[in-house]
Amino acid sequence: MESLKGFKRTTYCGTPRPGDIGRDVAVCGWVQRRRDLGQLIFIDLRDRTGILQLAFDDSTDREIFKKAFTVRSEFVLAARGKLRERSSKNKDLPTGEVELEVTELRVLAESETPPFEIVDNSDVNDMLRLKYRYLDLRRPEMQRAIAVRHKVVKTARDYFDESGFYEIETPMLTKSTPEGARDYLVPSRVHPGKFYALPQSPQQYKQMLMLAGFDKYFQIARCFRDEDLRADRQPEFTQIDLEMSFVETDDVIAVNEGFLKTVFKNVLNIDIDTPILRVPYAEAMERYGSDKPDLRFGLELKNVSDLVQNCGFKVFSDPVAAGGSVRLISVPGGAEAFPRKQIDALVEFVKTYGAKGLAWMRLGADGVSSSFAKFMTEEENEKIIARAGAKTGDLILIVADGRDKTVFTALGALRIECARRLGLIRKDDYKLLWVTEFPMFEYSEEEGRYVAVHHPFTAPMDEDIDKLETDKQNCRAKAYDIVLNGIELGGGSIRISTPEMQETVFRALGFTSEEAQERFGYFINAFKYGAPPHGGLAYGLDRLVMLLVGADSIRDVIAFPKVQNASEPMTSSPDAVDKKQLDELKIGLTRDTLTT
Amino acid sequence: MESLKGFKRTTYCGTPRPGDIGRDVAVCGWVQRRRDLGQLIFIDLRDRTGILQLAFDDSTDREIFKKAFTVRSEFVLAARGKLRERSSKNKDLPTGEVELEVTELRVLAESETPPFEIVDNSDVNDMLRLKYRYLDLRRPEMQRAIAVRHKVVKTARDYFDESGFYEIETPMLTKSTPEGARDYLVPSRVHPGKFYALPQSPQQYKQMLMLAGFDKYFQIARCFRDEDLRADRQPEFTQIDLEMSFVETDDVIAVNEGFLKTVFKNVLNIDIDTPILRVPYAEAMERYGSDKPDLRFGLELKNVSDLVQNCGFKVFSDPVAAGGSVRLISVPGGAEAFPRKQIDALVEFVKTYGAKGLAWMRLGADGVSSSFAKFMTEEENEKIIARAGAKTGDLILIVADGRDKTVFTALGALRIECARRLGLIRKDDYKLLWVTEFPMFEYSEEEGRYVAVHHPFTAPMDEDIDKLETDKQNCRAKAYDIVLNGIELGGGSIRISTPEMQETVFRALGFTSEEAQERFGYFINAFKYGAPPHGGLAYGLDRLVMLLVGADSIRDVIAFPKVQNASEPMTSSPDAVDKKQLDELKIGLTRDTLTT
Repeated sequence: MESLKGFKRTTYCGTPRPGDIGRDVAVCGWVQRRRDLGQLIFIDLRDRTGILQLAFDDSTDREIFKKAFTVRSEFVLAARGKLRERSSKNKDLPTGEVELEVTELRVLAESETPPFEIVDNSDVNDMLRLKYRYLDLRRPEMQRAIAVRHKVVKTARDYFDESGFYEIETPMLTKSTPEGARDYLVPSRVHPGKFYALPQSPQQYKQMLMLAGFDKYFQIARCFRDEDLRADRQPEFTQIDLEMSFVETDDVIAVNEGFLKTVFKNVLNIDIDTPILRVPYAEAMERYGSDKPDLRFGLELKNVSDLVQNCGFKVFSDPVAAGGSVRLISVPGGAEAFPRKQIDALVEFVKTYGAKGLAWMRLGADGVSSSFAKFMTEEENEKIIARAGAKTGDLILIVADGRDKTVFTALGALRIECARRLGLIRKDDYKLLWVTEFPMFEYSEEEGRYVAVHHPFTAPMDEDIDKLETDKQNCRAKAYDIVLNGIELGGGSIRISTPEMQETVFRALGFTSEEAQERFGYFINAFKYGAPPHGGLAYGLDRLVMLLVGADSIRDVIAFPKVQNASEPMTSSPDAVDKKQLDELKIGLTRDTLTT
Repeated sequence: MESLKGFKRTTYCGTPRPGDIGRDVAVCGWVQRRRDLGQLIFIDLRDRTGILQLAFDDSTDREIFKKAFTVRSEFVLAARGKLRERSSKNKDLPTGEVELEVTELRVLAESETPPFEIVDNSDVNDMLRLKYRYLDLRRPEMQRAIAVRHKVVKTARDYFDESGFYEIETPMLTKSTPEGARDYLVPSRVHPGKFYALPQSPQQYKQMLMLAGFDKYFQIARCFRDEDLRADRQPEFTQIDLEMSFVETDDVIAVNEGFLKTVFKNVLNIDIDTPILRVPYAEAMERYGSDKPDLRFGLELKNVSDLVQNCGFKVFSDPVAAGGSVRLISVPGGAEAFPRKQIDALVEFVKTYGAKGLAWMRLGADGVSSSFAKFMTEEENEKIIARAGAKTGDLILIVADGRDKTVFTALGALRIECARRLGLIRKDDYKLLWVTEFPMFEYSEEEGRYVAVHHPFTAPMDEDIDKLETDKQNCRAKAYDIVLNGIELGGGSIRISTPEMQETVFRALGFTSEEAQERFGYFINAFKYGAPPHGGLAYGLDRLVMLLVGADSIRDVIAFPKVQNASEPMTSSPDAVDKKQLDELKIGLTRDTLTT
């Protein structure tokens, strides 16, 4: 192996252009491939910026030529020489019109044959990729993802700094709360039997920073949640977290619209229109069956409960009578696009979302067919078609349920499924909206009481303060989510800032003062010493970057992600540890662990 | 309590100047104090930028005047009005020439009497301060510290971004290593009996990022160490961490000198000279008895072993014969400054650093007195004085020990102690240096073998490669520390980048290939697939900020620090958790924990 000693790189591989021909440059990188053509050897040298062709021919020093002949994929080279015009140009490569006539070559490191080729879109098993993550990350796609991630966080830091925010670090070793069922715990050697918790978010600390008068705070904060990893979650994830004092909802939204505008411009060179559309929660549910609607396509929900409440078809009328609803979507061109068999698949689809079934009406060119028309009058059917705004060629899909929530969930999902099947969803289309006026409370069957939808420190809307104790169901919060293409990018709220209001909300949640004190301790006390009105928001950074690079999973925008079972294949963490370490912490494994 | 509704702040309290007189402004903040002068009320309103005087007088609406009369310290107010010239100016306040003639006043929140006054330099117990950290942080000194910290990290992010570094996040839930005796462990619910470890540094991951071709990485990374908290350490601390590929020592140093220059300019408006002085480790020890010397004063060490090796004073000659040394510092003016009693104190001082005693020679105006002169010849004494460069009025302090290390440690500490007592240390003087050429290995009595001084991935100096197995004692590493005023700001090294060299170093450390594989697993394998030459550095951010703001403790530059016993008084973490949570993790407390 040769040393780098005295070798100064002058140029990244991906940067030379025809204008650079004649320049002496020095490059370093990895061998993407070597091609031998008898008297000619070409080596594609790769670094984070791209690929440059190194050329060795008759004019090359024989020792160098011989050395070039020995290199293999993923060897690490340093090469110096003169840039010259390439005889056979490669239009697919930004550097495809030039090549390096090599006059000095060093093999800095050799490589065994890697377990997979370093190229995008190859058919490599995910576990193998992650085990050799340091090789997987060499792929251009991963290089780009990490570069974009850097750009997004840099943009965030610049933007919030310019907007007067301080970046302030909050602790990682925090206190577990009774709400913290999914806290990661950290035993303390100094305090045997006591535990820290890793933060699920910096929520309490950032509110303390507002009480401390820092006025505007942000942090790109690692957060932790020990839960069964559902689709595309990570045990550790990153939030762009911010909080502001002396603000109302409009102020928080305005700052964040500026941020989103800047990110989209910097990363995708896209101008997004501001102000961004705001849709109240209730309207989002009514129209899209979702509190994070994808606005890249229509297929809006329509409520036909009033049309069917007295009809002869009990599948429709009973749910309405039970306080539920009957709603539909009309799929343009669906009559053709979804033959009977595919409709059956849609029926199965909505069942996975809790719907009992799916009624349909097909407005084919050859006439109307329907799963229910015969149970209803002609007039009733006509009215449904009219409400749906359907015309010949369309397909109407109807869900009825005694619980509104089920109707929304099923139709909301079906709306997306139909759009996907019809190819209505463009990946390069970016539709942002704010969903506002979330409910304060939702009834938890499990706990037998109303619980906070957001968290118990969220302020109610001024108009709904009198509903806090009398009409919880309809009490709305000063809470807002920012949604992009059907995915929640972030969410936040205006917080409660007076002890009186906090006490009222705790009472509404069914806590006595003593219970609240026990649960939230120091946090409640802090508000006795002058809290400013404040509010904030937190973005899921991983998701934001995923959407911006067009990746399918947040795993593709995290350098060293965990897999579904929360382990990391490269380092094999988590792992067993020495008993000595546990002894020092004064903890032991329980018997069923030892025997498994 | 009144609502903020519709009130838009226009101005921070600390910003109005005489040029703003006549402007209508709206401010928000906390009541620093209220003064009642009969027909006049003045309220000092404080926010993160400073204080503005609100004035209420005859011309003030009576309702507003009455309201102003009711406010107390730390109430939160919103006030609107016109800026006018202040009749009695306050030269100590940047806004001292103006005041706000209030025409609208809202009390946004009241405050109980805080447990201590929100002023700097008050005599408040530290534990009380930290318990009410949200109040303590309201003090101008803490506001400034956090603002400077923000500026330092922003400067770091800007600088490294401009220098081509990507900010890349590495995992917090990592794998515990056999070296990780001080790892914080995190039990895993998904993998009972297995544990993650919180990182002591991102060292392995950042090297993987170099192998992955990211070329230049940085991160402002939280790190963790579960150790008994010695003087001013925190269980969680923050590093500015960076790593570069295709570089040698000079490249890493050059990038970091640029960073330090920028930080000092941005934060303190000080121009530091570059290149920064480099002192090899051996020289630093010889001259200052320390690998992190404070260069703000002289008092350099001198070796007199050669002069005393054959003298009749066994306290000097024996240590030299045993392979140790006899060294001194000469304190200018010390004969006057340190009367006999103080010299006795210095003797006790060096004993706490392991020295058996302290010999001294006082060159008083009234003649020479000495603790040892009578045991030596006149000529020997003269030679010592000459070597010391001492003159009348000076005090020579000598330590002799059979172990060089003890001599260095004791004299190095004594050198600082004398400078402190003589008032030679200026807080606003900033003396930077690089200490280079650290030893690769040091002998561990405890383990009975040579261990790595830095870490086992540090590259040896090219000149010393042949000493790796034959002369470990004198084998130097490509390692460097950056030192400011006697404090290590950061350190790093060029890393080993080939499996062959890594194996040689492991052998030098006494590991077989199998042992190395078991200890470092995936990390060693990764280097088989083409590792670039690389190196980096990590700064202790907390310490850097502490020095820049002139704080005495890193606690004063961390928003929510832990105290000496690793607990946080505000939230009372760590704390006991529900047995249910432990059951889910399949861990239990051992008996002695339960009974304590």
